[in-house]
Amino acid sequence: MLGKIRIQRIQKLHQKKFRLLEKRFIAEGTKTVLDLIRANYPMECVIATSDWIKTHLKSPCNAEVIEAEQFELDKISCLHTSPEVLALCELPVLQASPIENTRLTLVVDAVRDPGNLGTIIRLADWFGVHQIFASDDTVEWTNPKCIQASMGSFVRLQPIYRSIDELETLCLENHSYAADLEGDNLYTTVVKSQGILVVSSESHGLHPVLQRSVKQKLTIPSAHKPGIGPDSLNVAIATGIFLAEFARQANS
Amino acid sequence: MLGKIRIQRIQKLHQKKFRLLEKRFIAEGTKTVLDLIRANYPMECVIATSDWIKTHLKSPCNAEVIEAEQFELDKISCLHTSPEVLALCELPVLQASPIENTRLTLVVDAVRDPGNLGTIIRLADWFGVHQIFASDDTVEWTNPKCIQASMGSFVRLQPIYRSIDELETLCLENHSYAADLEGDNLYTTVVKSQGILVVSSESHGLHPVLQRSVKQKLTIPSAHKPGIGPDSLNVAIATGIFLAEFARQANS
Repeated sequence: MLGKIRIQRIQKLHQKKFRLLEKRFIAEGTKTVLDLIRANYPMECVIATSDWIKTHLKSPCNAEVIEAEQFELDKISCLHTSPEVLALCELPVLQASPIENTRLTLVVDAVRDPGNLGTIIRLADWFGVHQIFASDDTVEWTNPKCIQASMGSFVRLQPIYRSIDELETLCLENHSYAADLEGDNLYTTVVKSQGILVVSSESHGLHPVLQRSVKQKLTIPSAHKPGIGPDSLNVAIATGIFLAEFARQANS
Repeated sequence: MLGKIRIQRIQKLHQKKFRLLEKRFIAEGTKTVLDLIRANYPMECVIATSDWIKTHLKSPCNAEVIEAEQFELDKISCLHTSPEVLALCELPVLQASPIENTRLTLVVDAVRDPGNLGTIIRLADWFGVHQIFASDDTVEWTNPKCIQASMGSFVRLQPIYRSIDELETLCLENHSYAADLEGDNLYTTVVKSQGILVVSSESHGLHPVLQRSVKQKLTIPSAHKPGIGPDSLNVAIATGIFLAEFARQANS
């Protein structure tokens, strides 16, 4: 049994202010929790049904394992359909490593939608991005919808938050690109795949400071003439296309 | 004023069965409604606040324009934040045109999430796809979340629903590709950009009938070895990367 106090404590973690205060966040679902266990990720506890424990926990786990009834998981889950397993994770103190000169670094600017940020983390993981920096006004990566959308990739890649001034320095000191509606054609540009790529929310556009500090702006050409067809692409979709093209050029 | 009967009628259109019965669907928000008006799309009426009408309706509109109070729009909107304008559109009877030999045709297989389908329609529009076919078990494109995610692109590009047998014939009779986790490397394959591309939901995978009827399966390579890193990419993201690569090859 979980107990009322623990249930209330976990329910509070659905809110950002308690996640920051308690330095804990929730990760749910079989794939994500197994990724956490495999990676030896610091967790306070794993809460699961007895069936889940029997089926999935064959080897030891570095966290306390608490057996719970499905109705208890329903109470603490952030999801519409509550899963059979949930982990209470420790919020790590992240340290940036020096910019690598073999792999791409991603900068996420003002992405407010947690689903988009989670999808970007999953994409960055897929394409082997070295590090993600995010502007201070980007949604926090421990938001349950972000954790969910990242599909376990947050275990390997967590955004490090920086002020716009720090991101400016990063762009000025390195070979930096930004995805922008007005830029050079992505497909006819030879890119350095160990540089910095800045992506920003399609509704706000690129921050003016980053506009002027990146070395080159690049665009994904549309089949339509300007003013006809879609105005833009969603930021996660655009990030996918950019990362794919950087990866293609790096491997060809 | 909208009147109680019209409000109730529109509220019913939030449900699929009434959309099919009444042959009407709802499209919301300034960009989408202006796209509809510009395209002369068949609409029963446009419902908007007086402010919206004053600001946006400079030229004549092919549908009845009904002025409404914001609280009335709140009642009929499908969105969390209700917009200032909403259109009641006629459900068109769609006819497939012959497969073009200059542009790509997209086949969407078993995509159940309306946000994903809407994003795919927006992407297909961006990259100038000629036509979209969807399997019968794909979510309907008039779902409010799909309309929303398509950002007006459904005005130019509406999926045509077909049985799996019809899609099989399409794949057998044309040069067809499928996005698949086990396929040839997308980046080292020379593709025919006037072929057929099949994309399927990442949770269900490609339908067995399409598995065996497409000419070639292609994959987006991951930076990780199999078993490490993300298992897959979201279907809308993968579609974006595929369409971008087909467009790049067509233009290089």
